[in-house]
Amino acid sequence: MPTTHPADRSERPGRIMSGEMAQQPAVLRRILDEGAPQIHEVARRVAARRPRFVLLTARGTSDNAALYAKYLLEIRLGLPCGLTSMSTTTAYGARPRFEDVLVITVSQSGGSPDLVASTRAAREAGALTLAVTNNPDSPLAAVSEYHIDVLAGPEQALPATKTYTASLLSLYLLVAGMGTDSDRDGGGAGVEAARALPGLAGRILERQDEVRRLASRYRFAERMVITSRGYGYPTAKEAALKLMETSYIPALSYSGADLLHGPLAMVDNISPVIAVVTDGRGGEALQPVLDRLRGRGADLVVVGPSAQVAAASAGFVLPTDGVPEELQPILEILPLQLLAYEVTIARGQDPDAPRALAKVTETH
Amino acid sequence: MPTTHPADRSERPGRIMSGEMAQQPAVLRRILDEGAPQIHEVARRVAARRPRFVLLTARGTSDNAALYAKYLLEIRLGLPCGLTSMSTTTAYGARPRFEDVLVITVSQSGGSPDLVASTRAAREAGALTLAVTNNPDSPLAAVSEYHIDVLAGPEQALPATKTYTASLLSLYLLVAGMGTDSDRDGGGAGVEAARALPGLAGRILERQDEVRRLASRYRFAERMVITSRGYGYPTAKEAALKLMETSYIPALSYSGADLLHGPLAMVDNISPVIAVVTDGRGGEALQPVLDRLRGRGADLVVVGPSAQVAAASAGFVLPTDGVPEELQPILEILPLQLLAYEVTIARGQDPDAPRALAKVTETH
Repeated sequence: MPTTHPADRSERPGRIMSGEMAQQPAVLRRILDEGAPQIHEVARRVAARRPRFVLLTARGTSDNAALYAKYLLEIRLGLPCGLTSMSTTTAYGARPRFEDVLVITVSQSGGSPDLVASTRAAREAGALTLAVTNNPDSPLAAVSEYHIDVLAGPEQALPATKTYTASLLSLYLLVAGMGTDSDRDGGGAGVEAARALPGLAGRILERQDEVRRLASRYRFAERMVITSRGYGYPTAKEAALKLMETSYIPALSYSGADLLHGPLAMVDNISPVIAVVTDGRGGEALQPVLDRLRGRGADLVVVGPSAQVAAASAGFVLPTDGVPEELQPILEILPLQLLAYEVTIARGQDPDAPRALAKVTETH
Repeated sequence: MPTTHPADRSERPGRIMSGEMAQQPAVLRRILDEGAPQIHEVARRVAARRPRFVLLTARGTSDNAALYAKYLLEIRLGLPCGLTSMSTTTAYGARPRFEDVLVITVSQSGGSPDLVASTRAAREAGALTLAVTNNPDSPLAAVSEYHIDVLAGPEQALPATKTYTASLLSLYLLVAGMGTDSDRDGGGAGVEAARALPGLAGRILERQDEVRRLASRYRFAERMVITSRGYGYPTAKEAALKLMETSYIPALSYSGADLLHGPLAMVDNISPVIAVVTDGRGGEALQPVLDRLRGRGADLVVVGPSAQVAAASAGFVLPTDGVPEELQPILEILPLQLLAYEVTIARGQDPDAPRALAKVTETH
């Protein structure tokens, strides 16, 4: 929280979103302390069924969590993955051949009718189904063979924050559990690698003043471009979504490679760029894109290692303290959530009151 | 072409893009007359290998063609599909288990090093590989087991137009061929269904004056939202990319369902919306989104059936003359290519000279 004086909190707009962002260290700790054994048991059972292909089904913020899981499943387990185009079953009545397919549906509410319908159709077509939600009593959990509760507690703000990081950590523990010799390890390796996250998340969230200064840069921005590569790419997409649904700034996210394939024409001095630079191979693969942006005089803000921030126009140094690259997305999104919040406040809007959004979206 | 007087053509900016857009009816005809037997033979051989999952690999415009193929493969053949996250192999060295997986790589140039590397890695890991390119002598064609030439002829303009529609039709014929009892049918059913396309494409491209009037609407637009569902969704994404890489207007594309999950906050009177309404189940599934946009007083332009255009703020009536919904994307993109071109001219820019773009993008 930005203020130490509780009375201030209620006077500032966006206190619901702000309060939920601040809960993230505690939520991450709860998953590691209380959720991990349940996730590990689900991982063991799912792995025993030996799926050969994974489809991830989600919308909005959860879709970005699903994309993170796609990277993990492909890189760590060598499982080919796809993201579900839901309308193929819900609108066109496709009957896919789903033997050996694991369908993972991610949804904080577990209540969207089209997600429920799509997951039910997948199960009927032979898929192994797993729901990852923040509500074990949801219809989605009920129609799925397995369920993981991300234990984030009730989320009231329309821009999802704590359910996003909770979903990432839960999905990380799932994939780590699927990849280990589970009976011997008991899922300990995954939990150990993630042990530093709650503390680091707390340190990052304490730096809200720093983010507020960064936010002034975008007070009058008419557009933003957010880029990354590899494990950081879902962070870029989620940051763009968060900025759009709170501040209404059109924020376009691209993988670094895709940016070079076209939209770079938009950058130059027209659009500020935020780059999410992971400390690892994704960050290395982004280097030519960063060099090109600097060469073109783009306004470049980096979330990442100190050397990368120093070479940019401005940025936020992310403390990773040896956290492996694949876990860094759980930290990277935090300053960008704060940024969405602060930019929205700076523009005189209320992050808690985006127009036109409902918490459970009734798409069919 | 917009002008009948050849001398005018060289004086107007964007004549390279304009010339290539105008070639599309002839390219579609060439594919049906000359390319279809080769595509059918590839389809027969690929189907005989009985792939169980499909991964599509592409970037930029070709990525939108790949997404179109994903819908076709899932709906018509029931094959679970995914889009490749290239960095999993090129940056992280993932070794996916690719038995029974068909990898289709789409690239107009066939020259991007990362596409070549990713496809080579997939083939070495056991995937059946198929390249769809506009250059049979390309490195991508060389590393792939099968190749389909989209026969679009040399494309010089940086915004790809004719290679996009050529890729769509080639992919349609591929999927149609994979789904038929090929030896008896000889691929005729797919060709017959597409037979009306060249003529209809010609009629649409003759209506450039109509699109020019529509373009004036976006002369001062600071952003645009483009939406669709089902088979029209790749069109929405490609239209957004085309508008961005020519006019630099930030154009955001969403499936109708995703739009309701967050970015709707941006719409209202802030952002004009273009909806691609297919004549079929995708258009029907988009109806609640259209109603909601109208209810909110959004500026809504429709590309689609006349009744949908009549109910919108403005639009472009798409002649489909009984063309099945799955082939309509080949027509839907044409007025939107013209729109990107005309908006760019209206804003005093040159569609042939987007900043910073190279035709073959050297991402690694």
